[in-house]
This record gives sequence, structure tokens and C-alpha cells, in this order.
Amino acid sequence: METINGQLNRKLRMALVGGGQGSFIGRVHSIAACLDNRAELVAGALSSNPEKAKASAPAYDIKPDRAYGSIEELVEQESSLPEDQRVDFISIATPNHTHFSIAKTAVEAGFNVVCDKPMTFDLAQAEELKALVESSGVVFAVSHNYTGYPLVRMAREMILNDELGEIQAIRSNYIQGWLRSRLEEEDQKQAAWRTDPAKSGAAGAFGDIATHAYNLGRYMTGLLPEEISCNLKIFAPGRQLDDYGHATIRFQNGALGTVTASQISHGRENDLFIEIDGTKGALAWRQEEPNQMVIRRNGQPHSVYTRDPNAPYMNESGAAACRLPSGHPEAFFEAFANIYRSAFDAMVQRISGQSFEAKNTIYPNVYDGVEGMFFIQQSVASSHENGAWLPFQCESARR
Amino acid sequence: METINGQLNRKLRMALVGGGQGSFIGRVHSIAACLDNRAELVAGALSSNPEKAKASAPAYDIKPDRAYGSIEELVEQESSLPEDQRVDFISIATPNHTHFSIAKTAVEAGFNVVCDKPMTFDLAQAEELKALVESSGVVFAVSHNYTGYPLVRMAREMILNDELGEIQAIRSNYIQGWLRSRLEEEDQKQAAWRTDPAKSGAAGAFGDIATHAYNLGRYMTGLLPEEISCNLKIFAPGRQLDDYGHATIRFQNGALGTVTASQISHGRENDLFIEIDGTKGALAWRQEEPNQMVIRRNGQPHSVYTRDPNAPYMNESGAAACRLPSGHPEAFFEAFANIYRSAFDAMVQRISGQSFEAKNTIYPNVYDGVEGMFFIQQSVASSHENGAWLPFQCESARR
Amino acid sequence: METINGQLNRKLRMALVGGGQGSFIGRVHSIAACLDNRAELVAGALSSNPEKAKASAPAYDIKPDRAYGSIEELVEQESSLPEDQRVDFISIATPNHTHFSIAKTAVEAGFNVVCDKPMTFDLAQAEELKALVESSGVVFAVSHNYTGYPLVRMAREMILNDELGEIQAIRSNYIQGWLRSRLEEEDQKQAAWRTDPAKSGAAGAFGDIATHAYNLGRYMTGLLPEEISCNLKIFAPGRQLDDYGHATIRFQNGALGTVTASQISHGRENDLFIEIDGTKGALAWRQEEPNQMVIRRNGQPHSVYTRDPNAPYMNESGAAACRLPSGHPEAFFEAFANIYRSAFDAMVQRISGQSFEAKNTIYPNVYDGVEGMFFIQQSVASSHENGAWLPFQCESARR
Amino acid sequence: METINGQLNRKLRMALVGGGQGSFIGRVHSIAACLDNRAELVAGALSSNPEKAKASAPAYDIKPDRAYGSIEELVEQESSLPEDQRVDFISIATPNHTHFSIAKTAVEAGFNVVCDKPMTFDLAQAEELKALVESSGVVFAVSHNYTGYPLVRMAREMILNDELGEIQAIRSNYIQGWLRSRLEEEDQKQAAWRTDPAKSGAAGAFGDIATHAYNLGRYMTGLLPEEISCNLKIFAPGRQLDDYGHATIRFQNGALGTVTASQISHGRENDLFIEIDGTKGALAWRQEEPNQMVIRRNGQPHSVYTRDPNAPYMNESGAAACRLPSGHPEAFFEAFANIYRSAFDAMVQRISGQSFEAKNTIYPNVYDGVEGMFFIQQSVASSHENGAWLPFQCESARR
Repeated sequence: METINGQLNRKLRMALVGGGQGSFIGRVHSIAACLDNRAELVAGALSSNPEKAKASAPAYDIKPDRAYGSIEELVEQESSLPEDQRVDFISIATPNHTHFSIAKTAVEAGFNVVCDKPMTFDLAQAEELKALVESSGVVFAVSHNYTGYPLVRMAREMILNDELGEIQAIRSNYIQGWLRSRLEEEDQKQAAWRTDPAKSGAAGAFGDIATHAYNLGRYMTGLLPEEISCNLKIFAPGRQLDDYGHATIRFQNGALGTVTASQISHGRENDLFIEIDGTKGALAWRQEEPNQMVIRRNGQPHSVYTRDPNAPYMNESGAAACRLPSGHPEAFFEAFANIYRSAFDAMVQRISGQSFEAKNTIYPNVYDGVEGMFFIQQSVASSHENGAWLPFQCESARR
Repeated sequence: METINGQLNRKLRMALVGGGQGSFIGRVHSIAACLDNRAELVAGALSSNPEKAKASAPAYDIKPDRAYGSIEELVEQESSLPEDQRVDFISIATPNHTHFSIAKTAVEAGFNVVCDKPMTFDLAQAEELKALVESSGVVFAVSHNYTGYPLVRMAREMILNDELGEIQAIRSNYIQGWLRSRLEEEDQKQAAWRTDPAKSGAAGAFGDIATHAYNLGRYMTGLLPEEISCNLKIFAPGRQLDDYGHATIRFQNGALGTVTASQISHGRENDLFIEIDGTKGALAWRQEEPNQMVIRRNGQPHSVYTRDPNAPYMNESGAAACRLPSGHPEAFFEAFANIYRSAFDAMVQRISGQSFEAKNTIYPNVYDGVEGMFFIQQSVASSHENGAWLPFQCESARR
Repeated sequence: METINGQLNRKLRMALVGGGQGSFIGRVHSIAACLDNRAELVAGALSSNPEKAKASAPAYDIKPDRAYGSIEELVEQESSLPEDQRVDFISIATPNHTHFSIAKTAVEAGFNVVCDKPMTFDLAQAEELKALVESSGVVFAVSHNYTGYPLVRMAREMILNDELGEIQAIRSNYIQGWLRSRLEEEDQKQAAWRTDPAKSGAAGAFGDIATHAYNLGRYMTGLLPEEISCNLKIFAPGRQLDDYGHATIRFQNGALGTVTASQISHGRENDLFIEIDGTKGALAWRQEEPNQMVIRRNGQPHSVYTRDPNAPYMNESGAAACRLPSGHPEAFFEAFANIYRSAFDAMVQRISGQSFEAKNTIYPNVYDGVEGMFFIQQSVASSHENGAWLPFQCESARR
Repeated sequence: METINGQLNRKLRMALVGGGQGSFIGRVHSIAACLDNRAELVAGALSSNPEKAKASAPAYDIKPDRAYGSIEELVEQESSLPEDQRVDFISIATPNHTHFSIAKTAVEAGFNVVCDKPMTFDLAQAEELKALVESSGVVFAVSHNYTGYPLVRMAREMILNDELGEIQAIRSNYIQGWLRSRLEEEDQKQAAWRTDPAKSGAAGAFGDIATHAYNLGRYMTGLLPEEISCNLKIFAPGRQLDDYGHATIRFQNGALGTVTASQISHGRENDLFIEIDGTKGALAWRQEEPNQMVIRRNGQPHSVYTRDPNAPYMNESGAAACRLPSGHPEAFFEAFANIYRSAFDAMVQRISGQSFEAKNTIYPNVYDGVEGMFFIQQSVASSHENGAWLPFQCESARR
């Protein structure tokens, strides 16, 4: 008999940190987490302003007594609840500079965490968080949500199975236009913190979106990085962080990678696209049309693989990430929900007292979070050194 | 202060009829209804087989005491619950031939209903149901879910505002391939009832999908129909209902419409696409790439409108149907959820004792359901008469 | 050793009728005919106005002594030239109502002809011309130029070889927007004669472009027609001929076809597109992106066949129609030139005293021209009879 | 009165060097040059093998007495012909290492030249050739044929007119797959010389196609380069020249450019595509779909500009490069012919004794050829120095 969350046979209880009025990603987390009916949102610390935190709660149907004013209050109060009421996991949907202390508090108290990316403010925090996660034994997922798309997972499995041969080139791009003008001067909340070095970290576009582009290539191919050269640009006059940048990456197997990120390209929305060349085949996928992936092989018609869970060509990872038959498009929320879905499986195992895989997971985890921070640090450093090649071997990097 | 369901400030309680093991559309209803955190699924009659009905409940986290064995039991038991526990609405996700009696039972007991399309088995049932809905005063939505896409709603508003001028031609197509072979002989549940005249009704492809294609054109343009000529085909040997068909429609304003439906086109997935020609502009939209719509005007570059709630060009209906910024694709579930979202607004009004619009709604309703049954009836009749033009003025048709 | 025109080893000599100032299609004929360096344009009757005819000659590098004032003069003078100077063929690029008398004059004098479509003003003329061609033994091609695209020819060969199985449905569309307003009132030469029943014939859009759409489906599939039902519309106020129309066609094997033509769809340029469903596969091709064709089969990725003469999948007809490797796009002129190229092969055979195939040709011929006129006649007649089914078995129709 | 070649009122006479059996680009030159009926091919030195040179002549309808065995013979014999028979220009369609001596011979004898790219074997030859062209006063065009596409020329004019604002980023890519395997070992003529350092020059893919990609960005934007950093790769085992590479370019105005070239990407055909970001708008164009260009501006629908000579939005350069109305696609040959068409205008001026522009031409010229060789030289040098930034200010570079 099929049940919710297997042997647990109940919904997981979620707390949300961030997500108050004006937030974008908080609502995304709540929708994604609950999409499959496997979780319910019951508590939150929705804003760093306690008053606003409480006022934002009814919009999520969070009851007043679980609408907390801070992560500390949340952790303390929830920890004091009986086990069958206490939240099972905490989702962090706040600006970058606050991730670390929130995550630390949650992890140290033994709560499972789903954390936005970039995972922390800098690499040192990321390494410290990794150690905390390892010692606490919690489930820790990072929302590199684009890895949740079924065709991305299908591609990863195909490449791991050598269906494209040795991978020799990765071209990964993330092109946006919304920061073309200095929105941050117009009281636009999303723009304000992302362009503020005190809140966003050492990088702007490279921290916000190039990390996704880099992660996507790594996730799909599993190639391990060796060196990086990067050139960042600030095109909007007066801005303090990069709004355009380009990195070249040498992988350990000799492959050449490029990552381009822009937030100043007129009219471009959220155009994450990737091309991968292998000795046996080449692949192209575009986030804005996520239900198809083109695979090409010399001498054959171009093959457009659609997200079809029932197709003979679909592999296990891909099929497991689908909710609908082909032609019924799935999109951003469903991909994001797949990060949760995979993390839920691990949480159920942990709650049930079973062991679970923490490093080689289908979902992005704390190790990927560390690698992302290393990517940002070395990109910024290389750019400061006129694009010099810097070492980029990352201990945390995993296949 | 923003709350869940406005003044109600609580989630709506949902019961699901149908959706047992092997069901596709039941799961869609449960995800769509709960997507915005405005409803929770608490009861169900998930199968016409009481044992299977109960066994299917845990997969939805429906508690055993509200896992009913029939619509009758559901209505009786829920009606006996205190008002603050009783379900607020019943979603019907069963094969066509059962819609009427389930809906009748629900409506007569005063429950709001969201019903799958085609609404009933035949036109007589539809007319009877319309009368029941009118006398009972419940909210009644029909899941012509493709009208929930933001760009479809944007298009409707644009056309109503005369931005494309007088509409002269509609070309609406719904092309699938999954019934190319006789899946119904292979114990495929979805295929089995859809190809069985005793369960599906008078039409196969024309009832299942041409109704959507016809409804989409009607929804976008508001043109009122006058006459219809139709040719249905059965291409899979031995099948009893049409798997391909084509109708020509004359609208009252002189416009010419065509509706083509196929379930035997190799490799075509769920390809509902529509082109509309007006005196001031022309429009094209495709369900499989729902986040863009092309509007063309002679002498101007083709304009690709993307689903961007923040764009100056986006109108109110379109923006209200968006959950994500542009470039973060929304898809099938979100569109389906928009039917629920709009119906919820009406339900909240009804529960709060306010009046609500029942006919000229943004969501498809019982009047559209009647028109859909009339479309099926006249299409089948015309095809039997060698494609003769039959009257198609529909009393229930609304702008 | 490869030579020009094989054993002939010289260029063919061309005369052009029509093509004077303001002409569009005359220049197309001259470029297409000479593209492969197999022909040279040496004579012309470029206008029905003798003065304009002579004045237009230098733009084509036609010498004054061969710039004739009429087809009669052209035929008389050229016939009197020694065989090694006389033109080998005459291309007719004039408005529809003049085709017949020009073609008759040319054919009776034994000249090979390449004639624009629709071939004549009415069916009676077409039948008479067919008889003349048969008795004279000349090569006679009709410029259904879209059949010259390599992928169209590849598709034809694939279908003849049963690679898509039994063909059951053809959806052929030709959508333009340029006659949205009444250009004919603004002294636009192209619009003027096309909308004038005295020059264009019984149909407007249906004669000008639906004939192409119908012909394309026939060419690709070889299905023989049985009955036709048609509805024509005039949407531009005051216009005398249809600018929109739709026909349904029953083929002898039970297949259902639809042809839609529009000249009033805002912003649509020259959008001839076709979809064909067979029991083993389905095909889609679009003239505006002619270098690719999608073939779909259930359970397989969609296959995008590109125009690649060197690909293992490319067949003989397709490869023979290519001039460039893949990725180097070919387009309208090259397709048009393929009609000439194929007709040249026959002309060389005729000139060399060999027999040549006149009916089952790779290029469209006088029999296709007759069928096109029958299509127009029956479409118009059906539309006059409220879309009644009319017989459409055409004696001239060929596989 | 319109005439061929204006006041000249006769066809220009062409000689072709290269183009013998197995050649691809020789046939392209002959078709492109003659497409508009403004030139005729009358002489050739079709192969470096005199016997093969003569044997190849009939396929071009070149008479035996003008089928020469070498460029020297061609120049000597043609120079001795009366002026009204002598060729007006010489097209060079041979492997790279022979361009210089052929061009030198032609230029020194006063013949106009259309030369393949890369223009010479190395930069020194290019500089020498530039001096020769300047002193001789001949018309000298280089076949950066992709600049001949109408929408490319439209884009250039738009950008020059500041319609996209200050240009800040250029992303130019040229992705092919045909050299994935070592075709050069299989006696494939095209592959053999391109992968041979003795014939191709210092670079493989970067000389063959990255030069086009670089040139395209330069042509469209007019930005002047300052520094270049490059990484070249050889992925096919045993190959001697790069088959993949990536360069980053800093322009003098602060813009950042990237050029990526691949010949090892499975199934990619001739995928030259470019994206340009300006402060007022962004542009994207793809060679394989050359009849459309997307221009985006924040807050507006994406604008798809199609190649429409009659559209109000079309500018003069774009319209002048069109031969057909919109929707009648033009492609590779027509773009290539536009290089000839523009060079012909200059030749006619020279022949008529008028002055003509030699540097700021609409067609690519000897100065662009020099810049291309500088691009290759600095790319290869930078790659040898681990991607170091090298100076890239080019004296010959022109707006």
C-alpha cells in the first residue's frame, strides 16, 4: 500500500525562515516543499523584523503561536515541542549573508535543513558549516534547484553511464537582464541585497547565477575542476558588484569549460543554457524550455528527447523526477520540488533511524555548497589578478 | 494583512472523488488544488471499489475515517460533520459516465464542485446539472484547465479589449499520438475507458480533447457559434470511437473556425495549439510551450510576449494568474491550479454569505460544460450526416 | 569528365515571358534557371507593353535584338534563328489569365516551357494545354516550386518507400498576411491582378496559395483524392475574391486531408507548413525553415532531419536536390532552381533525341497543372454550394 | 532605365582559381558571383594540377582555351587579351597556404580579386598583400561571407546608429562537429588540408571558423579590440591543429567579448551564432536560421525581426541585401552573393574610372583580412603562453 513518506505515513513538518512580505523565494520554498502533499508548513520565522514576521504568517496559514520572531526563538520553541509536533526540517530563504548563522543554529539543534544558495557568505563559513553538518548528522540540502529538472537528471545518468563518451567541453551560460538599470536604487528588495557586498558576498552575478551555471555543468558531467580563470565586469555605473562575468575552467580530465553570467542583457529573463560535448555525443538543454533536451550524434538526425516518463529511452533518474506524462509541461516549481522530494527521502530515513547517503546524493548538498563558495572565491580572486589561472581543485567536490 | 482565503483565514477543505491507484487526473487535482496552500485534502471516495478506495487513501494522507467507499457515503458522512470540519468542496476525477450522478449528489447536498470535462455523458445530463447548480447555488467549476494559463487569460483580456480587432478566424488543434495503437487492448486504464462508448460517451478524441480545443478558442475570443460541420474518423482498426476528427465552425459574426483533434499522430504528445486572426493583429499560442505567445501585426517585428507578471504589457488577468517572475517557467500544474484559485475566490464569497458571479466567470463553469456537451453532440451528429452543417447556437454560451 | 548538361556540353538558352519592371516572379525565374550555370537568359518578352518590354531588357542583359514585344514575336523570331542560337525553353512569369495563350503559342511551336502556377485561367484551358503538350512532345514544367526543397523530395521518397506506413491524415496550411488591407487599391501590382477575377481566375487565395498547399501534400504522399468540401471567405471589405479559405479532402484510401489558406493573417509571411500522419511515423515541415524536417515515432525522441546530403539517413532524391553541406542553409531560390534542374535533364534528353518521362516526373508538370485547376474549380464550386462534398477524382492525378 | 552593372551595361567577366573536382568552395564562388546575372565565369585555373585543371573546366562551361594550368598562365594569357574580353576579376578558392602567391600575382597584374579567408598563411603575408593592394588600386574583397546576410547588415547599421546603445558584451560562437573523428586520415580533401599546419597555417578551427565568428562581431559592432586571451585544444587524438578553442577579448571601450569555436561537437553543423548586449537593447542572430534576428529590450515583448525588405523597420543596408520578400527564405548562396554584389559596385566604379571606397566598405576587404590574420596569430600565441593576455590593437582595424 502506497503511503505518504513511506513507513513514516505522515506529512513532514516544515518551518520557513525568510519569506516575509516582498520575498520571492520564500513562497517558492513553501510551494515546492508541499507540492507532493508530503510536507506541511506549520512554523516560520518569516522576517528578521519580529513584527513583520508575525504579520506575514497568516498568508502561509501559519498559526500565531508558531510564527516566531527569529531563528533562535524558532529553534528553542520547536525543540521544546513534543516530537510528534516539532518541525522536521527548516528551509532557509533569506539573503546570503544570513544563511550561515541561521543554518548553524538549525544544524546544531539537530534540525534538517534546506538552504538557499550561495550557501554562505564566504568559503570559511561554508567549510565550518560542512563540519557542523557532518558532526550533527542532519540532512542538509542546498537549493541548486535547476538540478531538479527531470531532463537534467536524465542527462546526468546518461553521462555517468558513458552514453556521451568522454566529456571534453562544457559551455554553460546564465543570461538575465533585470539588473540592466540600477534597480537597487529604486527600493526593489530583490535587487537591493543582491548588489550589496555586505549582504551578497564577494560577487554579484557570479554569486547569484554563475554558481548555478557552474553547478549545473558539474552535476551533469561529474567532471572535477582543476584551474579557473575569470573576468568580472561591472557595467551599470556606480554598482559595486559584478553584473557580468566570464570564467574559463580547466577540468582534470583535460576538458575545457566556460561559464558566462549576465544580469545586464536586455530582455533576457532567466536563460540558463548548457551545451556539453562528449566523444560519443553532444547535448544541449535550456532552462526556459525545460521539457526538451537535444542530443546529437554525427550522421544521425538530431534527437529531441522530451520529458516522457513512459518512453523507452527515459532512464530511472529522469523518470523518478516526473509527475506528469509527456506534453503536460512541468516547470520551475516541480523541479524545485524535486530537490525537496529527494531530501525528504533522506529525512524519512533519518527519522526512521536508518542511515542515509549524505555526499553522493541526487540532490545538491553541503559539499556542493562548499564547492560553490570556492567557485565564487576563486572567480573573484582571478578577476582581481587580471584573469590569472588559479587552482580550483576542490576537496569537497564529488562526482 | 494578507491571509489565506481572505476573510475566511483558513484553508478550504477538499474531498476527492476518483484518483485511486492507476489514476492520472486525481493526483493532478490534489496537487493543483493545494498548490497555493489555500486548500487541504481531507476526505475522499477514491474508487468505485470501496476496498480500493480505502487502500488508496494513505497515498493522499487521507485519514481512514474520511476515506469513503462511495460518493453517497462521502456526502452523508461529511454532511453530518460539524461545519468547521466538513469539506468545502468536492473534486470529481472519474471517467465521464460517472460525472453526472456524482455531481448531482454533491450539488444537491450543497457542496461546491470542481468537475472534470467533458462534464457529463450527454447533453441531457448537462442541462439537468445546470438546472441543479442554478437552484442549489453552489460554486461549480469545470476543469477546462488550459484556460488557466496566464497567457491564455492575458489573450482573452486583450481580445475583449479589442486589441486584435474583430476576430475573423480561429484555428485550434489538439494533436496527440498515444492512442496510435490499440492500447485499450493492453489493459491500459486511461485508454480503456476513453475508447469505450459506454464510459466515454458519444465521442472519443472529440470528447476527450477536441472539447478542450474548441473551449480554448471560445474562451480566448468570446465569439458565439452558429453552425458546425464535422468529420470524425476511426483509424485504429477495431476501435469503436473516433481517434481523429475535424470540425469547421461558423461563428455568428462571420468568423470561420476549425478544430482538429488527433490521438493517432506518432510522437505528438499533448500539442494543443491555437492561432487567431483579427483585423488588428494575430495571435499564436502552444500549450507545450505555454510561457510565450506570439502576436503579429503587419509591418512590425513579430512580438513574443512572455509570461512576465511585471512587464508593462502584461494585463490584469494575466498577471493575476502568475506565481513566478519571467524566465522561471510555469506549466501544467500551475495552470490547473489557477482554475482552483479562481473557484476558491467564489467559494470564499459563498461561504462568507456574499453573492458571487456564476456565469461570467474567469474559470470554466457549468455553462461551459453544457456547451462542451452540445459541441460533442452536434459534432457526432454532423459526422453521421456526412459532415452536414448543423445548428450550433448554444443557449448556455457566454461571452 | 563532368560537363554542363551532360552530352550537350553547352548551356541551355532561355527566354523569359513576363518579368518587366515591378515583377517579382520574373526575376526569380531568371535567377533560379541560371543558378547552376546550366542555362543563360538570352531572349525575352518581358512585358505585354512592347515599349516596356524593350526597356526592361538591359536589366537582364538581354540584347536589344532579342527583346521582343510579344510572345508571338518571340516565337516567330526565335524559330527563325539557326538551331544553335535559338532558345531551348521559354519561362512564363505573367499573371494567370495570360498563361494559356502564351503556353499554347510556345508549345505549338515546339518550345519547352516552364510555366507559373496556377497553370491556366480555368480547367478547360488546362485540359486543352495538356492535350497540346502531349501531342507536341515538349518538356513542360509547372512552378510548384516548393516541391523543389530537398527535404520535401526526401519526404516523398520516404513515403513512397513506406517508411511512414499508410498515410491517414494530411494537414496542409499556407498562411500569409500581406493582403490584410486592400493593397489592390493602392496600385500595388502584385495585389492588383491577384484580387481581380478577370486576371486571377475563379479564386483568390485558394488559387494563389492553397494550390501550393494542396500540391505539396499530394507530392509528398501520392494519395489520390476522392471528394472535396470547401468554405471560402472574403474578409477584406469590398474584395471580390477569397482571401481566406478552408477545404477538407477525402482521399481514396480513406485518409482525411485539410487545406487552409489565408492572406489576411497579420504578420504571417509565407508560412506554408504541412503535417502528415502515417501508421508508422509522422512528419512535419515548414517552408520558412526549410532545412529541417521533424519525423516522430511513438516512444522515440523526435528526430530532426536536417538537409545533409552526406548523412547516412539522406536518400537519393533528397541528396540530388542539395548543393551545399549541412548547416549552410539553402532556401527559396535553390528550391526553385531544382524545378529547373530536373526539367533541364528532360530537355537535354529531348534535345539529344532521347525519350524522357513526361508524367511521373520529379518536377511538377502539366498533369499537376491540370489537377491544380481542378482543385480550384471544385473548391469554388463547393463553397458556392455551402461546402457540399463534390467529386474530386482527377483523371490527370498521378502518384 | 535599369541595366546590368549600371553605366557598364555588360556582365563582369570572372576567372576562378581553385574549384576543381572535390572542391566545395569553388562552386560556391561561381554560383554566388553569377547569381544576380551581373557576372559570367569565362576563365579558370581550377587546379594546381594542369591536367585536372583542364578536365574540370567543362563542368563550369569554361572553354578549353581559357582553362589555364596555373595562376601565372591565367594572368599572362588574360592580360594579353583585348580589354573587352579580358576577365575583370579573379576569385581565389584554394587552400590557405596558396592564397598569398595567387593574390599577389593577380593584384600585381592589376586584376580585381575576391579571396577566400583566412586571407593568407600568416600575418606577414597579409601585411605585404595589403601594401600591394594599396599600391595597385585594385578592388580586393575577402569572403567573410556571413557578413553578407541581410539581417547582419541591418544589425550593423542599427548599431552604428546607436539603436542598441553602447555595446558592452559580444558572445560569438561557431560550433561544428564534422572533424569529430580524424576525417583527414580518410582521404577527405576538405579535412586533409584544414588539419595540416603546412597548408592551413598556425591554427585549425581558430583559423577556419573562429575568424568568421570574430569578424562577425567586429562587423556588426565596429568595436575596436585591445587585448586577447586564448585557449586552444586538440581533442582528436593525433591531430596537429586545434579543433576546439576559446578566446576572451577586451575591447577598447571596455566591452568584453568571447569567441568559441568547435569542430568536434557531435551533430553540430555550421552553427555560427552571436549575441550582443548594448545599453539600449540586445540582439541575437543564428546563421542556420538567418532570416530572423531577435532584438530584446527590457519590459517589451521580444521582437523577432524577419528579413523583410518592405517592412518599415528595415533599414537601407538590410534592404539593399535582400532579393526576395519576407517569408521567402534567403540563405547561404544569397549572402555570399552579397559580398560579390557589393564588390561589383566598386569594380564597376574602378572600370569606369571613378574613385571607390577601399577601406570602409560594406564588404570585407584586405584590411579585414589583415585583422583576421592578426587574430589568428595572437590567439595561437596566447594559447602557447597559457592564455596570457596579449595586445590586440590592430592598425588595420576599421570601424
